Amino acid sequence: MSELYTEMTAGELKERKKLLLRRYDDFKAKGLKLDMSRGKPGADQLELSKGLNDVESYISDGIDVRNYGFLDGIPACKKLFADLMGVSPENVIIGPNESLTLMFDYICQCFTHGAGDIPWRCLPEVKFLCPVPGYDRHFTILEYFGIKMINIGMTAEGPDMDSVEEYIKDPAVKGMVCVPKYSNPQGVTFSAAVVERIASMKPAAEDFRIIWDNAYCVHDLFDDGDELLNIFDILPKYGNEDMLVEFCSTSKITFPGAGVSALAASKNNIAAIKKRLGAQTISYDKMNQHRHAEFFGDVNGIREHMKKHAAILKPKFDIVLKHLENELRGKGIASWITPRGGYFISLDVMDGCAKRVGELCKEAGVVLTSVGATYPYGIDERDSNIRIAPTFPPSDELELAAELLCICVQLACIEKLAG
Amino acid sequence: MSELYTEMTAGELKERKKLLLRRYDDFKAKGLKLDMSRGKPGADQLELSKGLNDVESYISDGIDVRNYGFLDGIPACKKLFADLMGVSPENVIIGPNESLTLMFDYICQCFTHGAGDIPWRCLPEVKFLCPVPGYDRHFTILEYFGIKMINIGMTAEGPDMDSVEEYIKDPAVKGMVCVPKYSNPQGVTFSAAVVERIASMKPAAEDFRIIWDNAYCVHDLFDDGDELLNIFDILPKYGNEDMLVEFCSTSKITFPGAGVSALAASKNNIAAIKKRLGAQTISYDKMNQHRHAEFFGDVNGIREHMKKHAAILKPKFDIVLKHLENELRGKGIASWITPRGGYFISLDVMDGCAKRVGELCKEAGVVLTSVGATYPYGIDERDSNIRIAPTFPPSDELELAAELLCICVQLACIEKLAG
Repeated sequence: MSELYTEMTAGELKERKKLLLRRYDDFKAKGLKLDMSRGKPGADQLELSKGLNDVESYISDGIDVRNYGFLDGIPACKKLFADLMGVSPENVIIGPNESLTLMFDYICQCFTHGAGDIPWRCLPEVKFLCPVPGYDRHFTILEYFGIKMINIGMTAEGPDMDSVEEYIKDPAVKGMVCVPKYSNPQGVTFSAAVVERIASMKPAAEDFRIIWDNAYCVHDLFDDGDELLNIFDILPKYGNEDMLVEFCSTSKITFPGAGVSALAASKNNIAAIKKRLGAQTISYDKMNQHRHAEFFGDVNGIREHMKKHAAILKPKFDIVLKHLENELRGKGIASWITPRGGYFISLDVMDGCAKRVGELCKEAGVVLTSVGATYPYGIDERDSNIRIAPTFPPSDELELAAELLCICVQLACIEKLAG
Repeated sequence: MSELYTEMTAGELKERKKLLLRRYDDFKAKGLKLDMSRGKPGADQLELSKGLNDVESYISDGIDVRNYGFLDGIPACKKLFADLMGVSPENVIIGPNESLTLMFDYICQCFTHGAGDIPWRCLPEVKFLCPVPGYDRHFTILEYFGIKMINIGMTAEGPDMDSVEEYIKDPAVKGMVCVPKYSNPQGVTFSAAVVERIASMKPAAEDFRIIWDNAYCVHDLFDDGDELLNIFDILPKYGNEDMLVEFCSTSKITFPGAGVSALAASKNNIAAIKKRLGAQTISYDKMNQHRHAEFFGDVNGIREHMKKHAAILKPKFDIVLKHLENELRGKGIASWITPRGGYFISLDVMDGCAKRVGELCKEAGVVLTSVGATYPYGIDERDSNIRIAPTFPPSDELELAAELLCICVQLACIEKLAG
C-alpha cells in the first residue's frame, strides 16, 4: 500500500485520521506549553559565553572604553569584525547590541536622506525585492517605511536571479534583502554563481542597496560548513562597491540581548553612515565591544566558540529532522530542506494547510512562528510555509513538540484531502 | 584706579597687555595639551562605578536578561528610572547606552511618521525653539532633519517665556528643546513659574513636542540641590500630557559610553514610540539594564552615588570659579553664572571676543568647546559665549587651563578695546 496520502481513498484517510486524532488527544491531555516560534538560543548556549563578564579591564589599545568617543567602534573590535566579514577595519562600523537596529537605521537613513541624490521619502514609490520565505523582521522594517515588497522565489542556490534581473529594470526597485548564508528560514547558502550574479547586477536605480544580512556567517552545524563567497571581493570587479551593505552580530554567538553588531560597507557608504551616526550617537557601548574583543581574542576564537554551539544545536536539529523523516517522508504532504547551519528548519506542507497546522499545534500547547510571517505583509499565498525554530526548547520538550507538529501536519492535510 | 578695562586709557591697556602677554608666553613655553572641550567625566569618576561589572547574576525578576525580549526594558530597570523621573513604570521606556540616541530616534520618528496626523517630513517647514546658549548635539539633530531653529534667550529662571509664547502661535513651530535642570551650559534650573508656564502652553501646532532633556536630574554639586518641579504632575492639569517627552541617562552617573538611557512619556506617546521601536529592535541591552538595577538597588542608591561625584566635581568647579573671580571679576569684560550642578560653566565675554579667546587658548595648548557651538548652526551672533567643561582634566591641569583661559579672555578683550 502506498504511503502517499494524496493517493489514499476516503476510507483509508479516515482510518489514518482516527489513529492520528488518538495521538493528538493524548498530547492535548499532557497540557504542554512549548515554544518553537523564535530563533532563541537555549540556556545551555548562553552559558557558553559566561566568560564575557569576567573581562575586568577597561583599557583597549590605550583607550578607556568607559568614556566617550570612538563613534565607529574601538580598533580591537573593528579588527575582530573586519576579519569575520573579510574586509578592512576602515570598512567596518561597530553597532549597538543587535544588527536589526543597524539595518533599520540604515533603511531609515536612505528614506530620510537617501543613498544617492534623492531621499527615498521624496519618491512616489520605493520597492524592495524580498526572497521568500524570509525573515519577518526585515519585512517589518520595510513595511514601516512604506516600501513595497516584491516576493522573489528562493531556489536551492539562493534567490531566483532570473526574476531579480527582470525586476531591477524598474528604477523604483531600490534594493533587496538577503540572508546569504544559512538563510532564514530555509538554511540555504547562496551558491558562488548566485553571489557572482548578485555582485554583477546593473539595477536601473543608481542608489540600489542590498541589505546583506549575514546573520549566520559562522553558524555551522557541521565541521565542514557551507562556503559563502566574500561578495566584497567581487563587487569592485563590476564597479558595484556601493551597492551592498553587510550586517552581522554576535546575537547568536554570545547573548541575543547583549551582543555586538557590525556593518561592512564601501568607503562612500561608511562616510554617509558616519554622517548620520554623528548626529545619532556619541558612541555605542564600547565596554561591550571590549568584552567581546577580549573574550574572543581573534576571529579564530569565534570559530572555536561556534563549535560549542554546534555541539548543542546539531542534536536538536536532528530531533526535528528525525520526526519529519519518520512521520512525513513519502506521504506527499510535506517537504523540507535539511539545513547545514543557521537557526531554522523550513517546512512546506500541502497548499492551504499551514495555518491549520498552526492552529492544531496551538490547541495542543505548542507555539509555532505565526504562519505567514515568513512572507511580506504576513501573506503566504499558498498557505504552505512553516518555520521551525528548534534551538530554544530543551531536547525532551523538542521531541514532544516535533512529534506533535508531525501529527498536526498529517491531520491538517487529511482534513484538506477529505475536503 | 578702576579695574574696569572698559574705562582704561590706551596706555593703561597697553601696560596690562604687556603683563598678560608675558604670562601668556610663559604658558606657551610649557607646551600644554589640555582639553576643556567636552563634558567628559574624569577617570576618578569612572572608578566610582567599578561595581557595575561585579554583577554576575543573569536573572532579574525571573527573566534571563541575556536572551531576547522585553522591548521596553526589564521591570527592575523601568522601576528605577520611573522613580528617578517621578512617573509610573508604564510611562517609561528603557533605551540604549545614551539618551542622545533616544532623542534622535524620537525626532526621526516625528519626521518620518509624525507626532500627530501629518509626518513632519510632509510639511513645507518645521521649526523648533532653542533656548540659547544650549547643547550643541540637540542642534545637530534638528539640523540633520532640516528643522529650522529659532533662538530663545535664557533668563536666570529658564527660557524667556514671553518670547516662547509668541513663537508658538506659529503652527510651523513644532517643538522646543529644554535642559530643565542645571542647563547645558549655564547650569540654570527652570523655576517653578517657568515650568508651570511651559506645562500650560497652548501651541498652535497640535503635534507640538517638547524634548525635556533632564540630563542632569541628579547632578547636584551641593547637598541642597536645585528643585525642579515634576512637569508630569502639571501637564495633565492643562490637558498637555502628550506635549512633552522626558529623557535621561546614566551617562554621567556610571559610564558615558556604557550607561543606560530612558524616556518618560504619556500613554499615547509610549504607544507611538513602541510601534516604531518594535520595528527597530528586539530589545536594548538588558544585561546592562540589569547591571544598573542591581548596582543601585533603588533610586536612593543613585542619589548616594551622586554625592560621590559631587565630592570629586565641586573642587573642580571651584578651581575654575576661583580663577574667574580673581582674574575677571570687576573688569567689565566677562560675566558668568555660578552653577549649583551639571557639567559646565558658561562664560560670557565682551561681544566679538569669544572666537579670539578660543584661538589664543588653542595656540597655548588648551582646547575649549568650539566657540559658537552653544548656538544653533554654530552661530553665536554676539561672539560672546564660551562653555567651560571642568570635569575631565585632573585638578592640577585644570588650575593651569583656567588661569590660561582668564589670561586669554583679558588679552582678547584688550585687543578689542584697543581696536
